[in-house]
This record gives sequence, structure tokens and C-alpha cells, in this order.
Amino acid sequence: MKKITTWSTLIWLCIFMLHSCSPSIAESTPRFPYSVIRPESLSVLTENELYETKYFTQILDHFNYHPESYQTFQQRYLINDKYWDGSQKKAPIFVYTGNEGDIEWFAQNTGFMFETAPKFKALLVFTEHRFYGKSIPFGGDKKVAYSNSSTLGYLSSTQALADYASLIIDLKKNLTAEDSPVIVLGGSYGGMLAAWFRLKYPHVAIGALASSSPILNFDDIVSPYSFNNIITEDFKSVSENCYKVIKGSWSEIENTAQQKGGLESLRNSFKICKNYIDVNSLKGWLNTAFVYTAMTDYPTPSNFLNHLPAHPVKQMCNAIDDPMAGNNTFAKLYGAANIYYNYTGNATCFNLNDNSDPHDLGGWQWQACTEMILLTEGNNEESIFPASQWNYTDRASNCNTDYGVEPRRHWITTEFGGHDIKMVLKRFGSNIIFFNGLRDPWSGGGVLKSISKSLIAIVAKEGAHHVDLRFSTKDDPEWLKDVRKKEIKIISNWLTKYYHDLSQLAM
Amino acid sequence: MKKITTWSTLIWLCIFMLHSCSPSIAESTPRFPYSVIRPESLSVLTENELYETKYFTQILDHFNYHPESYQTFQQRYLINDKYWDGSQKKAPIFVYTGNEGDIEWFAQNTGFMFETAPKFKALLVFTEHRFYGKSIPFGGDKKVAYSNSSTLGYLSSTQALADYASLIIDLKKNLTAEDSPVIVLGGSYGGMLAAWFRLKYPHVAIGALASSSPILNFDDIVSPYSFNNIITEDFKSVSENCYKVIKGSWSEIENTAQQKGGLESLRNSFKICKNYIDVNSLKGWLNTAFVYTAMTDYPTPSNFLNHLPAHPVKQMCNAIDDPMAGNNTFAKLYGAANIYYNYTGNATCFNLNDNSDPHDLGGWQWQACTEMILLTEGNNEESIFPASQWNYTDRASNCNTDYGVEPRRHWITTEFGGHDIKMVLKRFGSNIIFFNGLRDPWSGGGVLKSISKSLIAIVAKEGAHHVDLRFSTKDDPEWLKDVRKKEIKIISNWLTKYYHDLSQLAM
Repeated sequence: MKKITTWSTLIWLCIFMLHSCSPSIAESTPRFPYSVIRPESLSVLTENELYETKYFTQILDHFNYHPESYQTFQQRYLINDKYWDGSQKKAPIFVYTGNEGDIEWFAQNTGFMFETAPKFKALLVFTEHRFYGKSIPFGGDKKVAYSNSSTLGYLSSTQALADYASLIIDLKKNLTAEDSPVIVLGGSYGGMLAAWFRLKYPHVAIGALASSSPILNFDDIVSPYSFNNIITEDFKSVSENCYKVIKGSWSEIENTAQQKGGLESLRNSFKICKNYIDVNSLKGWLNTAFVYTAMTDYPTPSNFLNHLPAHPVKQMCNAIDDPMAGNNTFAKLYGAANIYYNYTGNATCFNLNDNSDPHDLGGWQWQACTEMILLTEGNNEESIFPASQWNYTDRASNCNTDYGVEPRRHWITTEFGGHDIKMVLKRFGSNIIFFNGLRDPWSGGGVLKSISKSLIAIVAKEGAHHVDLRFSTKDDPEWLKDVRKKEIKIISNWLTKYYHDLSQLAM
Repeated sequence: MKKITTWSTLIWLCIFMLHSCSPSIAESTPRFPYSVIRPESLSVLTENELYETKYFTQILDHFNYHPESYQTFQQRYLINDKYWDGSQKKAPIFVYTGNEGDIEWFAQNTGFMFETAPKFKALLVFTEHRFYGKSIPFGGDKKVAYSNSSTLGYLSSTQALADYASLIIDLKKNLTAEDSPVIVLGGSYGGMLAAWFRLKYPHVAIGALASSSPILNFDDIVSPYSFNNIITEDFKSVSENCYKVIKGSWSEIENTAQQKGGLESLRNSFKICKNYIDVNSLKGWLNTAFVYTAMTDYPTPSNFLNHLPAHPVKQMCNAIDDPMAGNNTFAKLYGAANIYYNYTGNATCFNLNDNSDPHDLGGWQWQACTEMILLTEGNNEESIFPASQWNYTDRASNCNTDYGVEPRRHWITTEFGGHDIKMVLKRFGSNIIFFNGLRDPWSGGGVLKSISKSLIAIVAKEGAHHVDLRFSTKDDPEWLKDVRKKEIKIISNWLTKYYHDLSQLAM
């Protein structure tokens, strides 16, 4: 597979959810100059107590009946029954609908489930998405599974949803827990899956908490500029100067690079390791820092994508606005990048040629080339990034080069809807919470207004990417505590109604 | 592909919906001893005025991204815009979700749409199901498409539903009719598809009329005896003697066949043509007559499966109870069979080896071997047919022999639900009418009680298989007129609410 080399094409590949997104050009051995991501310290349980690992024999292709469709693979799921009140009590089951990566990582970053399980006496299950982590079709051999479009062809959102339905139904049957209500939860792409799961499989899940799920970021439903507009606002809201410095830096970098010795000068300014540098990679590296810091602009220190301090956007702007840095744009930018890439202070240089993928997120590139045509790349004149238009043709052409596939541009809205969602779901469907934090660039594609009494939007002005699902900390602000309280109350109501209906029907 | 030869296995293949279901053993050239089925005379339009034929370029596999998935085929649809008030007026679109056969046949037997279109100023569309009629993948070459499980593998209900969604969205776009509300309608398997379509694609259809759709005839939701119990009751309700004669006949036929010259004697009794006879085929031939007559026990003369008089079950029983037939069971049975197979009186003999398939229904055998595991074969001690148990192992074994596939026994309920439907849909979903006629054996698997204010069951005690969707006649009984009035009123309400919501949102 050919690697992506230009800056603009790089962004769409790495931008979605949780990628290790430093530019990567196939050359020399990858290193880990900045700290390897580790699970956040767990406030409730030790890591070993969090869950047991199990496997489910999953069918390769739910929707067709070719001989190959009948192949199976081992799908991993994590389970914790420590708090569960059991099937006889019809105690609930909370299922995390896994995203595009190693499910352990998501589980370890979804403290909300561990912390609410005791209250609900809930069984916890985390299902891994096919083609990620240890849930690899074709005998578990990732090299085979990822070798070409004939094998990767089975990596799709509809297959993943059907996997979850099959697994949950089987699990409930095995536990004689058919009457235990299931709530699905997920963040980011996992949140999209949770919302869609409730809509498509209401007979399996009675409700969904879809956190930071940009289900409207497709087709022409929302503006392709919304994503970067929000990042722009994030920085602007902290400091107008900070925004201006970043906005002005791109041409300065470009100009410097074109001068003789310019690249070496940039290398020195940004402490880039000696193995590789080019201007697009450098710009991509900086872009990643701004995008992901905006996404994870949490009010407390975190270690989700990288180790970060509380309010990291503010910290970045502090570095940029620091009078000590004088008028040197690159020194300012370096200070900002250092917040994202080197908060622990361990890095000696930064590797622009880092292919590491500690959370096994590589399959997203395929998903972004087939169905996940999320529109995020537009930059208007005000953008903190250089102005650019969203260009479908570029995407299609790159995907054709990389995989020989053509994106199905309109498939997600054909299958899951999204257009006129208020109209469509006003009198259809129930029991979904759409949480969005407005500092999260993905909130531009989220459901920000309640649709009906039971399709409820919760919006946190100060919130970032699925902050509600994270482990609580003693320093959590009131608004975050309130969000979680609201969510718990709504889920309680769903369960109360469920048990009420069940008792009524039994009469 | 091996042909099915035993009686018990024959039934499950031919019993669903609309098969030309005389036993077929590959031997000698098929003939048409009884009248070829012709479309009913049309009360509103001449045949040529009914619709135009168009084609849509459909994708082969919506859910995967293999190179082969991207293949396309021409999907046929029929369209009638004579009554449509146009996209500017946001006039509605009624879409028939095609069943397992030639779409023209279904269109010609769905007078309800043609007759209500003027009132609603609706556009009419009839979409053909993949692998049937003229909608054949693999270059339209049926021999290739049906050659083995690698090609037939793409024949599934989920693919068909996604076809309909894709076609409707594209059609609306081409007509600039994005705001025109779509109602889906269907009968039998087409009714199941209509109900499922509303549940899975609420963003494409605002409501569904699902007529005689046995969506609960899967897994252990309803009894596998319900189907034949209803047929038993149909005959019993007309005449206890009629029921007893039929019930007693099976052993008499068996005994006769075992005697020397017995088969020849049976041939004479039933006017079986000389090319072929065996006792299982004969029993299957009789069984078919009783099953299909019960299904189409309409209150007026009809020509859907065969030419039939009004109230054909009663007519059959009249033949059986006829004192002129004396005590000769076979003469009585022959008289009854003659109602179903030879109402026009043209047949000189009946061919047990008839492979004709005038409505192109052959693909159902594949569907019954993969996902459509409808439980209809049980016969208890009271049954009009010999007592027998529903046996999944037999089905699986036959399907393995015929196609080398294993049925996915629980897939339909995994994908579409069905268990505890009252509980699941009480607070989810809206705008579906489930019509059932209680004389129809498929009503045993239907939704017979309303689930919520907008998931409404309409039950007609005297009704048969999707009688509501047929062209009206001057002799229609009051209850049938009432059913249609109710349906029209409910659909009107959906549309009123839709236009109301649309105007509210525009404000």
C-alpha cells in the first residue's frame, strides 16, 4: 500500500478519532520519541480487576451467503460481572460498542461505565470492533486480513453492528439473561455505532448513550468547515494573539523551507530527529498537535491520546503568548507543540517518520476510504489553518491509489440517515442521549438539540471529546458532574420504564 | 442442484407465499395442464396504462467492499406518475417493496395502490427484488446468477432492503422530490420487507402498510403448528365432514398406493397425466391445493395463484360434501382439487411433474435455505394434514444437499427482532399498519394486536392473504371496504402529520 505523503491528504486519514497521527513516510525504523501512551490511572479498580477477556465465534459476513461468508473469526470482548445483580433480578447490561482500535484502550478510558455499574448493578461488556485489536478475521492473522481489498472488504460499520447484535444475543442467552435490558454506550466512532445500534437494533438495546458522535458529519448535512472552525474558536477564545500566531505560522514555515538551509533551520527550531524531515510532514505534525489538543481539551490532566495537562489549549496558548519567547514564531510554536508531544519532558527529538500505532488504529484508513467520508477538511479564510476546500475528488483518487477502492460517498446517509434528522426522528425511535462538548471539533457534526422527549441532546459548552465517559477525578468541574448526573438520571428512567413495561406485559 | 423429492421437504420449499407448487421431479418436458396464471382483469386502467418500466443501476453488495461488491446490475422498477401532484407540491410517493417474483405480477395484483393514488395524488413505484424477474445480477444472466452459492450468495433480504433505500433516494433526487413523503407497501414477504423497511430506514419511508406479513413466524416466537392449524380451522369452519374427509384421506391414499395397481388407480381417480406419478407427489399436489386455497380464500372470484371462485374453501367443501360423490373419498377429493387446479375446466389431466414457474419465484428456495426459516410445517393430532413435527435438522440437511449452505436459523430475529415485539416497539418506531386476515394461514405469524398508537394491527376475521391490497370489485363485502377505508385514513393521518411537521420546521 502506498503511503500518503502530502499534507492535505494526510489530514483526512489521521484526523478521525484517535489516531497516532504523526506523518509517516515509509523509511527507516520507527522510534517512540514521545511517551508511549499508557492507560490512565484507574480510580475504582486496579487494571487487573477491570475485566476478564473472552472471545466469541463471530461470522465473517452477516449479509451474504457465499461460502466465504460462513467463515468465522474470534471476536474479543471484555466482561466485568463484579457489580451485576444477575439474570434472575433482570439486572441491566451495559455494552460499550467498540471503536476503531484495541478495545482494552477504550475500556480503560471509559471510567463512566465502571463508576456507574455499582449504582445500576450492571454487567459490563466491551465488544471489540472487527479488524482491530485481537478481533482479526482470517485466522487472526493481521497480515492476511489487511493484505488487500478482498480481505479488508469485510471491515464495515454494518458488519460491526451485526457482530454486536449477534454477540449480545448469544451472551444473554448463555447467561439466561434474556430479560436483562441492554444499554449501549460509546464515544466518537463508538458513539456513532451506539446511536445507530439503538436505531437499527431496538430489539437488542433499549437505549444508547452516544457520546461525541458526529453522525451528521456526512454528505452535505453540516458544513465541511465546521470542524476547523471549532478548533479556530477554541484557540481564539483563549487568546486572539495565540490564534494569530498559529494562523500566520504556516506561510512562515513554507517560506523558511524554500530558503537554502531552511529545512535544517526548521529541524533545529522544532527539535526534529535527524532521520527525516520535509515541510508537509512538519506541518502535519503541528496540525495534529492543534487538532488533538482541541479534541482532548479536558478540564483535568489526562492521558488519552497523549499525556496532557488540564486545559491544554490554554496551556498551548500560554506557551505562544509567553513574553519570554519574544517574536520568534517557531519558538512559540515549538512551545505549543511541546505541550502535546512532550508534556512528560522525556523527548529529546521528535520523529516525523513515526509509524507506531500503539492502539492498533490502522484500519481506520480503510474505513475512511470506503464509507466513513467525514467532511472535516474545509478551512475558510478565518481558519487557524491555511484556507482550503473540501475536495472529494482528491479523497477518491487517493483511495484508489492506496487500496483500489472507490469511496461510497453517500452510503452512510443511505443506511443510517442523517438528513433532516429532527423531522425523521421526531416521531420515530427513542432512548438515545447525544452528548457533545462544544470545544470538541467533532461537535460540529453532533446532534446538538433534543429531537423528542427521549432523543435527548446534552451539550456542554466547556466539554471536549467524550469527556463524560472518562473516569471522574476529584478536580472535575461542576458542569461535568452535572452532565454525568443527567445521563445517569436519563438511563435510570429508561430502566424504570423498561421494568414497568415488563411487569405490565407479564400481567 | 438436486431436486427435492419427498413430500415433507417439498412443503417447506413451496409453501411460502406464492409458488407454483406442484411437485417437480426433473424428468420429461414440463406441460401446463391447468390454466397459465394471468393477471386479473384491471378495473381502473388497461394493462398498458398501469406503469412504465425503468431500470436503476444497483450495487451488488452494499455491506462489504470487496472488488466484487462494486459490481452493478440493472434493477427493474415500474413507475406511474399519472396521478402524481409533483415534487413542488411535495406530493407523496407510494412504493411497493417487491417480493420473491416478477414485479409486474405483484403490481397487477396490488390494485389498492392504483385505486388510492388519485385520492393521494401519489406517484406509484414498484421495485423488483434482486434475483427475481428482470432484476438479475451478473449481467442479467439467470443461469450464471443461479449457478451456485457464490453468485446466489447475494440474494438476501438485507441486500434487498438496501437496494430499495438506494433506489428511492436516487429517484427522489432525480425528481427533485426530496420532500415528498414515501409510504412503502407490500404483501406477504413484500409486507415483511415493508415493515422492516420502515423500521430500518425511517429516513426513507415515513410509514408502511405491511399486509399479511408473518414477521413473527421465526424462531420460537409463534408455534410451528399455527400455520396448519389455521388451514384446519378454515375447512372445519365450513364443514366438519369436509375436514374429516380430507384428514382421513392421507392414509387412504397411502394404503391404496401400496396395493398392487394402486398407483394406476390413484392416477385414474385424480386424472393424473401419464408422464409421472408417485404417492408423495400426489399428496403434495393435494396439499398445495388446500394450502393455497386457504391462503387465497377471497370473498370474490380471483386469479392470483390460480383462477378461483369466490369463497373457494367453501366451494371445495361443497364438492366434498356433495351427496352425488357418495362415499368415494377420492372422488370427493378430486372434486375439491378441481376447484383449485381446474376452475376454468380446461384441464384434461394434471401433471405432477410440472416445473413451470410463470412468476419467476424460483429464488425463494434459496432464501428458504439461508435465512427465511419460516416455521410452518408442524401438524398436531387435530391437523387436517398428517401429524408431523417441525424438524430443523431435515431442513438443514436438505439445504446442504441442494446448495451446500447451512441455514442461518436465528439471523432474521437477530437482524429484525420479533421476540417480545410488544415490549420492544411499545416505545420505539411508528407508522406501520399490520393487516392480517384470519383465514390466511400466515396470519399465525402476523402482528395481530396494535402495539402503540401508530403501530396498528388491523385484523379481518373473514380475510385471506393480503386481500386488502387487491383491486376492489363491486361484490366486495362491507368488512373489506372498511379495512381499506381504515388503511386510507391512517395513511392520511401520517401524511397530515408529516406536512405539519415540515411546515413547523420550516418556520
